Amino acid sequence: MTGHPHHQLKARRLGIDTHSEAAIFMHKDCPVCRSEGFSSLNRILVSTKDRSVIATLYQVEGGMLACSEAGLSDSAWARLDLKDGDMIRARHAPTVESLAHVRGRVYGHALDQDALNQIIPDIVAGRYSPVEISAFITACAAMPLSPAETAALTRAMVASGECLSWNRAVVADKHSVGGLPGNRTTPIIVAIVASLGLTMPKTSSRAITSPAGTADMMETLAPVELDSAAIRRVVEREGGCVVWGGAVNLSPADDVLIRVERALDIDSEGQMVASVLSKKIAAGATHVVLDMPVGPTAKVRSADAATALSSSLAATAAPFGLKVRILTGDGSQPIGRGMGPALEARDVLAVLKNDRHAPQDLRARALELAGALLELSGRAPEGGGVALAASALDDGRAWSKFQKICEAQGGMREPPRAPYRKDIEAICDGQVTQIDNRRIARLAKLAGAPFDKAAGAQMHVRLGDRVTRGMPLCTLHAETPGELAYALNYGDANTDMIRIAEP
Amino acid sequence: MTGHPHHQLKARRLGIDTHSEAAIFMHKDCPVCRSEGFSSLNRILVSTKDRSVIATLYQVEGGMLACSEAGLSDSAWARLDLKDGDMIRARHAPTVESLAHVRGRVYGHALDQDALNQIIPDIVAGRYSPVEISAFITACAAMPLSPAETAALTRAMVASGECLSWNRAVVADKHSVGGLPGNRTTPIIVAIVASLGLTMPKTSSRAITSPAGTADMMETLAPVELDSAAIRRVVEREGGCVVWGGAVNLSPADDVLIRVERALDIDSEGQMVASVLSKKIAAGATHVVLDMPVGPTAKVRSADAATALSSSLAATAAPFGLKVRILTGDGSQPIGRGMGPALEARDVLAVLKNDRHAPQDLRARALELAGALLELSGRAPEGGGVALAASALDDGRAWSKFQKICEAQGGMREPPRAPYRKDIEAICDGQVTQIDNRRIARLAKLAGAPFDKAAGAQMHVRLGDRVTRGMPLCTLHAETPGELAYALNYGDANTDMIRIAEP
Repeated sequence: MTGHPHHQLKARRLGIDTHSEAAIFMHKDCPVCRSEGFSSLNRILVSTKDRSVIATLYQVEGGMLACSEAGLSDSAWARLDLKDGDMIRARHAPTVESLAHVRGRVYGHALDQDALNQIIPDIVAGRYSPVEISAFITACAAMPLSPAETAALTRAMVASGECLSWNRAVVADKHSVGGLPGNRTTPIIVAIVASLGLTMPKTSSRAITSPAGTADMMETLAPVELDSAAIRRVVEREGGCVVWGGAVNLSPADDVLIRVERALDIDSEGQMVASVLSKKIAAGATHVVLDMPVGPTAKVRSADAATALSSSLAATAAPFGLKVRILTGDGSQPIGRGMGPALEARDVLAVLKNDRHAPQDLRARALELAGALLELSGRAPEGGGVALAASALDDGRAWSKFQKICEAQGGMREPPRAPYRKDIEAICDGQVTQIDNRRIARLAKLAGAPFDKAAGAQMHVRLGDRVTRGMPLCTLHAETPGELAYALNYGDANTDMIRIAEP
Repeated sequence: MTGHPHHQLKARRLGIDTHSEAAIFMHKDCPVCRSEGFSSLNRILVSTKDRSVIATLYQVEGGMLACSEAGLSDSAWARLDLKDGDMIRARHAPTVESLAHVRGRVYGHALDQDALNQIIPDIVAGRYSPVEISAFITACAAMPLSPAETAALTRAMVASGECLSWNRAVVADKHSVGGLPGNRTTPIIVAIVASLGLTMPKTSSRAITSPAGTADMMETLAPVELDSAAIRRVVEREGGCVVWGGAVNLSPADDVLIRVERALDIDSEGQMVASVLSKKIAAGATHVVLDMPVGPTAKVRSADAATALSSSLAATAAPFGLKVRILTGDGSQPIGRGMGPALEARDVLAVLKNDRHAPQDLRARALELAGALLELSGRAPEGGGVALAASALDDGRAWSKFQKICEAQGGMREPPRAPYRKDIEAICDGQVTQIDNRRIARLAKLAGAPFDKAAGAQMHVRLGDRVTRGMPLCTLHAETPGELAYALNYGDANTDMIRIAEP
């Protein structure tokens, strides 16, 4: 079938970003399309001598591609390890056997460990199209995953990637469910608990939809793209790290699933539990504190939902030897002042240095979470965690530890400052009654965050503050005048994102 | 927000076929991507002065696009009615409100008429991504649609496009559930019942995955791309037609949903009922016969499933004044001899002309279905339909009517003959014990069908036939030597697709 030499095509890198989905572009009249009977959106097995990938086909007419060429998306190019001019073969992709289990789930049959051990590696290997991933996610949400299915999904996700092991009885970790702008407690918590002797090898993510991920923020202070060996050296030496998780392949299925879940805005408890726990188990954690903002526009909307999620997390975590504690919190406004990598880093530094202007809400939330971690791992008596954490912060141990961690990761550096700044001012007198997290985050992104490290927004007010007309509510930071103007324009059109009213 | 002149981009047609999904390609560093904070796979509202469409974004690096350009897929180009060099604007797509109903369905809430009246037009307008359509389909399959939901879905699908009306008490139609290669009874049935005075305005589809659709086959005999007015003229004059349905916009949601259902291989009874009935109701039919091959590899796998589907179809059809009868049949081998547009047309002509070499299985199946339609519509007494149909076929009335219909559609023509032919021969003596419909259809497609009208495969044997080594089992027809060789190659590698064994 693939023996005909004229059925090879010359690979061409098109530079198209399709995230993890592999895509192939071929001319509609190319001999392979005609003889194989391909049409657009077919799933195609693309092969070189050593490698293969399943890609979605987009047929092209006109001059974009020659009939002897196949254009490939970046993801397909990388998976096939191609060089320009390499030859590829294409044929109809064979049936992906594990999809039968997904269809079975749609028709009401439970997924067992065996089924999930087939489905999850197929998803990681790119054998599922986005449409098929969507069917899997929807089927698991429409008939909620049972506790047994949730545990099996977690296990399959852990097994789908690398696992770190630390050879210690206690390995601490922390996770935040549902993004609140500026909620950058992680580096503070790592510094505190590591200064108190706990091991906390923290892998963090970059922003997907927010103005900054923890990894983006941390990168303004120290290198974060460390491989497993380098991470291990840092943790051996300092007891903790704050690095980008992308360089180590922990629960890679989660990254694929979470993108589709976000696109659909569909969450199911079982999938959320498997997502959180698989990353932590793969990272080798034994004691995990979860930061869970609760509010009408947050991911978790009520105390009841938080309790249900807590018990599902604890039950699923137990067989893996993982202890979990959840701290709910107020999700009604941003935490700290900065939004954007460098601005958030400055908040973190201010708290660590005990600067008297440091944002107290960020300090308080970090102490609460660090305290819970100290109690959960037996380093502090119940009720004594926050005081112990505060002592390490107040006497400079945490700050000293943080500097050492940054040095171990490759050298501490100063976060950049944006050359262009402008205040957004109050348009009337009154009291701040509402802050729209979503639009504030958007403002910071329009100013250039997270791509421009120095860009973003800095808040000057919190809920309940009294303001007078003309007072600065927040300051925009940008690296170009164009982006500053663009964000200002959005601010002018959305003056109600920080609502001021007579109390 | 969209007022900045530098946030316009010059539209460029890339010639990329993405079916109904609109796609936009922008350079990663273009000012719009940066200032809007776009990333790949974001859903983008693309606008001209008068029109807009929601498109999926693919970001590009390198030389494929300039930073001032936006590349568009064919579907986006057509929906926006663009000319080269036109300027477009792009911003984040607003929330598609009806997705809240889809999420509600995922979480267990029934869909009412109002919800479906929002969802279906959004799908037709391209506001749903494939991932979102997949969630809708999966949610409706995971918790089967209730009879009320099925009726509401049917009504919403009918309302999403055009409707034909014929001002007659009886308008006959026919539909085949699940493709069996070569099953071209439609033109024969239309000719028979129209010759007996019934009105049967038949709209047919082109092949999606098969070697020929009814419209592809009919096109080798007469023009099929008629608009509503032309169809009406033909039907007024001759009582029947066989035209391509794509030129009239009947239940356009069905075309979008069916592609994703096929990709997922997920069928739900409710969706199948709404799909079939919405097309028939929109076409103005009052009496419909359904041809339903039943078999282990067919769409409907058992007599029980056929009965359940029958009663759901009848119940849903009743409020629309539509009468339905289902004829199950054997789905174990192709019907007729030809597979491919012209080869199937020759089978149809042979039956209509009462050629003594005409395939008797095709004749018998067409008579059965035509007979059922005559009985259902009251033209023949129960049990008398087949005999009446046979009389119209035998005495030449059907053939005469068919020629008149072809003339009315624009002129009858001779189906083309392929210049390159080659037999696939039996490799041993024995009896034909199994025929793989799927691989036989693939063979016909490799030879060039349905794009090359004359190409395909012609069967010479049926189940149970005795053959000796070297006897031709089927003949390949191709328009180029390359395609002939390619199909032969596949035939050689798959000699077991027609299995010969000692009885």
